[in-house]
Amino acid sequence: MSAAKISVAEFDAIVREDLTWAHDIGMRADEIAHGRAILRLPFRSSSLRPGGVVSGPSIMALADACMYAVVLSAIGSVKLAVTTSFNINFLYGALPVDLLAEGAMLRLGKRLAVIEVRVHSEGRVQPVAHATGTYSIPPAKAP
Amino acid sequence: MSAAKISVAEFDAIVREDLTWAHDIGMRADEIAHGRAILRLPFRSSSLRPGGVVSGPSIMALADACMYAVVLSAIGSVKLAVTTSFNINFLYGALPVDLLAEGAMLRLGKRLAVIEVRVHSEGRVQPVAHATGTYSIPPAKAP
Amino acid sequence: MSAAKISVAEFDAIVREDLTWAHDIGMRADEIAHGRAILRLPFRSSSLRPGGVVSGPSIMALADACMYAVVLSAIGSVKLAVTTSFNINFLYGALPVDLLAEGAMLRLGKRLAVIEVRVHSEGRVQPVAHATGTYSIPPAKAP
Amino acid sequence: MSAAKISVAEFDAIVREDLTWAHDIGMRADEIAHGRAILRLPFRSSSLRPGGVVSGPSIMALADACMYAVVLSAIGSVKLAVTTSFNINFLYGALPVDLLAEGAMLRLGKRLAVIEVRVHSEGRVQPVAHATGTYSIPPAKAP
Repeated sequence: MSAAKISVAEFDAIVREDLTWAHDIGMRADEIAHGRAILRLPFRSSSLRPGGVVSGPSIMALADACMYAVVLSAIGSVKLAVTTSFNINFLYGALPVDLLAEGAMLRLGKRLAVIEVRVHSEGRVQPVAHATGTYSIPPAKAP
Repeated sequence: MSAAKISVAEFDAIVREDLTWAHDIGMRADEIAHGRAILRLPFRSSSLRPGGVVSGPSIMALADACMYAVVLSAIGSVKLAVTTSFNINFLYGALPVDLLAEGAMLRLGKRLAVIEVRVHSEGRVQPVAHATGTYSIPPAKAP
Repeated sequence: MSAAKISVAEFDAIVREDLTWAHDIGMRADEIAHGRAILRLPFRSSSLRPGGVVSGPSIMALADACMYAVVLSAIGSVKLAVTTSFNINFLYGALPVDLLAEGAMLRLGKRLAVIEVRVHSEGRVQPVAHATGTYSIPPAKAP
Repeated sequence: MSAAKISVAEFDAIVREDLTWAHDIGMRADEIAHGRAILRLPFRSSSLRPGGVVSGPSIMALADACMYAVVLSAIGSVKLAVTTSFNINFLYGALPVDLLAEGAMLRLGKRLAVIEVRVHSEGRVQPVAHATGTYSIPPAKAP
């Protein structure tokens, strides 16, 4: 496997500077390899929903940011790559602990990337959610 | 059409008390009828992403909360209704103005509800996103 | 609205010559306009599943072919347009009568089209399924 | 892992007797374990689409039947279990050879099962499609 085209530090800088909504909830990368990424969403009580579990939109935000990290890990810092479709199944209630999203590239084409993400509570193997999504990759600029 | 089983004021109270993540970004209901709801996400610069458009997760959060409002409009304040699956297609970049999500019930069963949501920028007809989702309805308690 | 770039007769010829699996189950177009199409799946007992309703894959085949018709209605006979993602919610059991799929373009870009389809039993308004899908449009050949 | 609640022979009998549309295209199970199944779709030229690859609906039919096998492997021969939602991403064109679908249970609840399926051409590791779906499980009859 080739080296990642973006580092954890570089991705976290993008979160800090360009994804305020993600930075505000503490999202950050744990690991990035070529075509793979692990993102972390620290537990915050403000992300809970009735039933005492982490809200669906918090999990979706984590899964989508993880897909973005997977795409950038393979094509470099192309910030204008954008989600075109996103699908998620919620499997089990997410405990009030940190969430980890593990993403992997299913297909990388010139124009579209397809990514799969599993989300689990830290310390648990059982996934709380499974997501897939498609990112559109902008045409490379002429040199 | 029968009357909504939850009012705008009742839904906004749930957002305030139980959906901190939604309250924190200013989400609120504009209209609720039986099986229909319009939710508003006020524009905030912190929800932007590279390209100057509203981020995908902000739109997903709005669409999911709109589905919740649609479900509660039909079954009353059953807070433990939860998303089981969610799908979204992003159609056009969302301008830096308020977003409106219009949701309608596609099917209401005893155990599952299916909801459709269109999201558009205020003042524009063209949708920026189209979402569908499934909510699981908990069994009614014995009296 | 501009005129459809493919007629009912032209689409049915594609079904006959290029989509044997669809032709074999009698699929055909009822109406095609620019960015819209209505396709029909005649009832056949071989498409039933336990419970006496039309099987999911038959409905998915109809919905996907309807999306193809919608795409070709807007870009002409570009046979190599292909589905990249497809999502469907099954709402009600489909009666043993003809099924009609009504499709409409949600977004037509240079590289991707997003289409929405509602499927209902002939003579009923209530939809049995709601689907959305994305088609990839191949680059136009240089002249 | 506990034993499968349905055998390959029992599943193939259901295909033969109850899923005529699947039987007609030669679909059959290769392996079934508890919560897992591998289904095979023999190559037939009638399933091709323009471009010389296997059509999307053929792949969707295989993936959906694989999900059904996974559900029955875990709950037994409950024929009235039905798909409620289905999502698929098409990754690579499917060669004109047999297709294999490998399905695994992501979550088995009392009322809903969530299943993941990867489809690949025989002899190739790279998946041609990735699907997830939800099945509704009918209430058990009172004894």
